[in-house]
Amino acid sequence: MVAIDIATRVWNHTFKLDPIIRSLLDTDFYKLLMLQLIWGRYRDTQVTFELINRTASVRIADEIDEAELRAQLDHARTIRFSKREMIWLAGNSFYGKSQIFRPDFLDWLSGFELPPYELSRRDGQYELQFHGPWTHTMMWEIPALAIINELRSRAAMRGFKRFELDVLYARAKTKMWEKVERLAELPDIRISDFGTRRRHSFLWQRWCVEALKEKLGSRFSGSSNVLLAMETDLEAIGTNAHELPMVAAALSVDDATLRDAPYRMMREWQDWYDGNLLVVLPDTFGTRSFLDNAPDWVADWTGFRPDSAPPIDGGETIMDWWRQRGVDPRERLLVFSDGLDIETIEETYRHFHGRVRMSFGWGTNLTNDFRGVAPEPTNGLKPISLVCKVKDAAGRPAVKLSDNPAKATGLPSEIERYRRVFGTEGAIPRKVEV
Amino acid sequence: MVAIDIATRVWNHTFKLDPIIRSLLDTDFYKLLMLQLIWGRYRDTQVTFELINRTASVRIADEIDEAELRAQLDHARTIRFSKREMIWLAGNSFYGKSQIFRPDFLDWLSGFELPPYELSRRDGQYELQFHGPWTHTMMWEIPALAIINELRSRAAMRGFKRFELDVLYARAKTKMWEKVERLAELPDIRISDFGTRRRHSFLWQRWCVEALKEKLGSRFSGSSNVLLAMETDLEAIGTNAHELPMVAAALSVDDATLRDAPYRMMREWQDWYDGNLLVVLPDTFGTRSFLDNAPDWVADWTGFRPDSAPPIDGGETIMDWWRQRGVDPRERLLVFSDGLDIETIEETYRHFHGRVRMSFGWGTNLTNDFRGVAPEPTNGLKPISLVCKVKDAAGRPAVKLSDNPAKATGLPSEIERYRRVFGTEGAIPRKVEV
Repeated sequence: MVAIDIATRVWNHTFKLDPIIRSLLDTDFYKLLMLQLIWGRYRDTQVTFELINRTASVRIADEIDEAELRAQLDHARTIRFSKREMIWLAGNSFYGKSQIFRPDFLDWLSGFELPPYELSRRDGQYELQFHGPWTHTMMWEIPALAIINELRSRAAMRGFKRFELDVLYARAKTKMWEKVERLAELPDIRISDFGTRRRHSFLWQRWCVEALKEKLGSRFSGSSNVLLAMETDLEAIGTNAHELPMVAAALSVDDATLRDAPYRMMREWQDWYDGNLLVVLPDTFGTRSFLDNAPDWVADWTGFRPDSAPPIDGGETIMDWWRQRGVDPRERLLVFSDGLDIETIEETYRHFHGRVRMSFGWGTNLTNDFRGVAPEPTNGLKPISLVCKVKDAAGRPAVKLSDNPAKATGLPSEIERYRRVFGTEGAIPRKVEV
Repeated sequence: MVAIDIATRVWNHTFKLDPIIRSLLDTDFYKLLMLQLIWGRYRDTQVTFELINRTASVRIADEIDEAELRAQLDHARTIRFSKREMIWLAGNSFYGKSQIFRPDFLDWLSGFELPPYELSRRDGQYELQFHGPWTHTMMWEIPALAIINELRSRAAMRGFKRFELDVLYARAKTKMWEKVERLAELPDIRISDFGTRRRHSFLWQRWCVEALKEKLGSRFSGSSNVLLAMETDLEAIGTNAHELPMVAAALSVDDATLRDAPYRMMREWQDWYDGNLLVVLPDTFGTRSFLDNAPDWVADWTGFRPDSAPPIDGGETIMDWWRQRGVDPRERLLVFSDGLDIETIEETYRHFHGRVRMSFGWGTNLTNDFRGVAPEPTNGLKPISLVCKVKDAAGRPAVKLSDNPAKATGLPSEIERYRRVFGTEGAIPRKVEV
């Protein structure tokens, strides 16, 4: 009476592992945009990325089996871009523009494979590093985070019975849909999925993306996940990340060059991209310093993404700055993407509505909110603040200051130097939840 | 990437209709027990069953398409007991006893088919009647009710989008599981599924049954649905229903025979069944009268099922009566089955715990509680009080009085006569919800 697809069942039986990363497109879109620039300008730059668990209370190495982690990382290294993926990258238009990727870049990309990793354990944590050309190590960030986060979910759910799992996902869907219904009350919202790195699982992210698409229609502007964008016919969303100014800064030979690093990298970005891809990420070394020292042309960029200041304060600061530069904020865009949940989104939306264009990049609380849905309370389903950051570039240590000192990364002595160069005005300590 | 079972998909495409009744075992177990007795003693008795919608405010004929209803009823008439179903009926043990069904009865049953129906519309309602031998018309009760209830659900959900449906069932599961978790707090509960006739759908009933099985283990004693009992390896639960005394009463030639009708039918029942199948259903013509006039041997039966009195009052009345007859209630069983939901079950359980054996037959609020789960509030998913009752036997009108006058059925003049014969003491009007 119940139809069982025997082939699928047998296929499942033969899994060596149930892969978390199924495609090299299962990454954030901005990685590909940045990669093209890096491939064009920094092909020989060696950059180390490393995993940092800011939620030290969670001992990941006690939760996740090392052999399983290695199996997932090893599997990801075997993946190549498929032919249809390459055709889609070449033929699809992104941000309204066709042929955003150059043929010679795509040619190079078609042979891409993830480089080796170095994994060890210390004090209940994994030390995971990626050494090699920036073009290669940078591509580990998203898959490495997604793998660890999904392995944590799987470990937490391992003992659950069939019905407990069924009910867990029923509850998670119920909870998620309530958020989606609240979003649907906001008539001009523009929101996209930024939740790949912290997702509960690939399949769950896919459900969340489809739920938003279903309920919000065109108000759901897309997904940062390239694979999901391709498979669900959504826009791939994203522009650039902290690694660009971090590497530019690390490569700087003196304090003046260091101070100019973020703008230098933006000038390079402008050589490759324009329009809605011109989104400023101002907080790498503190937004206050970034704005005070910014050349006039920065005000011509389409928008800003305040990523570590509280959204309302951060947005107001940028709007003030636009006005000082003679720009009407209603012609500019604010992209909010830091630690959002439904309440912050509603509050921020209402605060800025009609005063500036805005969009929301919703991450962890979209794709990994399993609070209160497990049969028994479990910490294993709580998301943690796990990041994969540039450690050094060309052998020189890299630093991120952020507007939130709790998000700073780098050697303490280097952080000190950067704070001297960029100043610390405007830094607002906030607890890093996710 | 998503595996699609092409054969299943194509099979779905070719459905003339998605059948609600898929097997003649998709009925309540007590129907088969009663049928064997009827087949043995009343093979030539003509009995009419008719549909009664006590929730007059719901205009079923406006909700459900007549052609669809006919298609489902017609489909049910094409079903026969399959070979493996017959083998299971013959080989399985019920209530701890093997070969409960006689070989000659099973032989007769193997050729069974549902008889014709008469369907017309009046004033927004369907008039649905089944004329013919009692052995055949009685088998329509459960499938007819299940068909109409599921067609109502389907009609209510017809306009829902894919995600709305997904979320609807996620919410329904979440809600149901909360009830199951509350039941699991009751250490000695014995509960079974009595929800076939009023179910939201066959698949949903199956989920509910599996959820109870998963969480309660052996405290979930089984399902009244024979097909689900067979498929999920549970006990088939049920004994006898009002139609037996109703027909016996209708066949009675004078008031004295009428007064004796319930006991006469029970004597016949004892010829066929024993042990836990000896459960008294005392309320057909009023529990008070039934108890006051009951022969002593009635106290030897294993239990009582008070089906229309409020459970605590109804149970206490029966326990008092047992004590008057020198029987310790702790050696007897009370089966509660009228309009139960989690709160009534908890309250009744706590009230009687340790004082009497008890079990619960949970119906509508188990298999059809979709309050508050639809994307928009809809009456179409609210269960209604729909029954299929004996209208006449051998051309003589049938009557049910019940302990709740709101549940009485029959011609007004006949109800009057029955009230004169059986009295009206103990009748407690209650709103009939489901």
